[in-house]
Amino acid sequence: MAVVEIRISLKEGVEDPEGKNTKKALELLGYNVGDVRVSKVFTIEINEHRDVLEVAKDMCKRLLANPVIHNYDIKLVMTDDEKAVQ
Amino acid sequence: MAVVEIRISLKEGVEDPEGKNTKKALELLGYNVGDVRVSKVFTIEINEHRDVLEVAKDMCKRLLANPVIHNYDIKLVMTDDEKAVQ
Repeated sequence: MAVVEIRISLKEGVEDPEGKNTKKALELLGYNVGDVRVSKVFTIEINEHRDVLEVAKDMCKRLLANPVIHNYDIKLVMTDDEKAVQ
Repeated sequence: MAVVEIRISLKEGVEDPEGKNTKKALELLGYNVGDVRVSKVFTIEINEHRDVLEVAKDMCKRLLANPVIHNYDIKLVMTDDEKAVQ
C-alpha cells in the first residue's frame, strides 16, 4: 500500500473563475490581494504492485486531469516500507 | 508582496462525497485503491504589511474554511525578500 498526493492545477493562461471570485470576496472583506488560484489535491491510497508513481500518472491521464487545461503534480506521501516519505 | 498556499481539507470523520466518487471511478477503471480524499489549495498573493501568516489565518477563519468540517494548513511560498522560501 502507498499513499500519493496528486495536485491538479489549471495551466497558466487558463481562466480560474473560482480564484477570481475568491479574490473578489477577500477584497470585499478588506484584504489587499493580487492573483488567487485554486487547485485540487487528491490523496489516494494505492494498493497496486506496480510502480506507484506510474500508476498515479496513469490515473491523471485517464481520469483526474484534463490535458487541455490542467497540469498535474504527483507526490509520494507514504509507502509500506518507509512511512512518511515526505 | 508574499504568496501563501492555503490548503483546506475535510476533517477526519467528515464524509467526502467527491473522494468517494473518485474512488468508484478509479475502481471502474480497474485500479485497486483504498481511501480517496479531496482537498483544495488556494494560492494567494497577499499585499499586506502585516504578518502574512496571520493575515492568511484570518482569511481562513473569515472566509475560506468552515470550522465545523474543515482543517486548514498555511504555507508561505514566497516573500518579497526571499524568493521561494519552500
